[in-house]
Amino acid sequence: MPDNRGVTARFHAPDAARIGDTIRLPPDEALHLRRVLRLEAGAHVRIFNGRGSEFDGVVVDIAKSSVHVRLDGVRDAVAEPRVSVTLAQAVLKGDKMDDVIRDAVMMGVAAIQPLVSARSEMTLAALVRGRRRERWERIAVASAKQCGRATVPAILEPQTFEDIVAALTQMRLPSPGIMFVEPSAAVGALTPAELADAPRQATTLVVGPEGGWAPDEIARGAATCRLATLGPRTLRADAVPIVAIAALFAVWGE
Amino acid sequence: MPDNRGVTARFHAPDAARIGDTIRLPPDEALHLRRVLRLEAGAHVRIFNGRGSEFDGVVVDIAKSSVHVRLDGVRDAVAEPRVSVTLAQAVLKGDKMDDVIRDAVMMGVAAIQPLVSARSEMTLAALVRGRRRERWERIAVASAKQCGRATVPAILEPQTFEDIVAALTQMRLPSPGIMFVEPSAAVGALTPAELADAPRQATTLVVGPEGGWAPDEIARGAATCRLATLGPRTLRADAVPIVAIAALFAVWGE
Repeated sequence: MPDNRGVTARFHAPDAARIGDTIRLPPDEALHLRRVLRLEAGAHVRIFNGRGSEFDGVVVDIAKSSVHVRLDGVRDAVAEPRVSVTLAQAVLKGDKMDDVIRDAVMMGVAAIQPLVSARSEMTLAALVRGRRRERWERIAVASAKQCGRATVPAILEPQTFEDIVAALTQMRLPSPGIMFVEPSAAVGALTPAELADAPRQATTLVVGPEGGWAPDEIARGAATCRLATLGPRTLRADAVPIVAIAALFAVWGE
Repeated sequence: MPDNRGVTARFHAPDAARIGDTIRLPPDEALHLRRVLRLEAGAHVRIFNGRGSEFDGVVVDIAKSSVHVRLDGVRDAVAEPRVSVTLAQAVLKGDKMDDVIRDAVMMGVAAIQPLVSARSEMTLAALVRGRRRERWERIAVASAKQCGRATVPAILEPQTFEDIVAALTQMRLPSPGIMFVEPSAAVGALTPAELADAPRQATTLVVGPEGGWAPDEIARGAATCRLATLGPRTLRADAVPIVAIAALFAVWGE
């Protein structure tokens, strides 16, 4: 059902697979349809499955605890970037990491790998206790809804920086990666323009926490990553990923 | 005086001009030095004048209502971008415009020209009543302090979109500008990679409000601007300027 700007509401339903199927919306999405948008049976909606497929649908049934939608047609999904980018991001303080997840999904990353480094103010145990990964997954879905993507990037299980270096070395993360450092932290770090030779398929961007990388982390990262810098001004830690992705996608012609 | 990360505190003092002068800090900066950082006479500080000059200084006198600093040496200021960018930004709702000012200063713009367009939810009169320009000037100073710039971009007097088009036509704003539109809003809008032919000296980036441009605004803008788009995903309005500047500076080799 178009809103007053002519936009049809979009919902995330991982079960959506084939035209003709009737699928049940996840509880959060059902609540949003019923209570926030106040749609009724017969409403036309769009459904995306988070894996790149998007459908036209019709609401066939609304009950208190469930909403069913029939998939009537396939739509062309918004194109994904040709280069699959995994953002390996040191966990930031407070809500800043939420903003990074939201922005990275909007910018088109394929996956987000949270990490804990020497100067992170969070431990892996605290992330598990706080159920942060589940929260970030909800934020990724919300951002995909807003920006029009039919793909919801995976939020990978948080790891230590050492784990990330090992994963890059063993090619379990797309390698070589690109590790972002303060201009003063490394001689010869490359600018985005100097990284214009696009990776053919995939890469990992490695971004540090508020306090930056410890010197030995830069040394270890440099063994599997190209070191990159975003210019002479000091960027806020939570702005580094959006600036890095925007800059690299621009020089790669995405 | 270095903090525990070895960073010497920086203060904005528009009067700072020559080595040997003793200058008085503006009231906000004096309060910050005295009450937040609790510095004392004899402390070593950095002073930038907002017009590109940066000094080493020593606090010579602290009184309740004033702080004096003697300028002892000139420092190399952080380099400004070669292309002077004026951001002509439609005023956004709530605090979003504050974030745009902060980010644009951090990204290195030379000036910010707030504007009111057909779909803005603010009038010029309301901006004046709310003393918004003064607020944005304070945010620009704070952002310059944080990001290390010695230049504080000018916040120009808010104008209507019609005024902006006239100023671009008459070259009172750097022209031709680059006007950002939704991918669906204009056929043939250019990507950042297609705008790689860098302007030699200066340009104006024109960015719309949450609701986008009215069709006739795009038509009028296209007469003095190149139309540009940032890809197929829908970006949040407040993210468009940081993404646009990051992308263009990358392809321009800034």
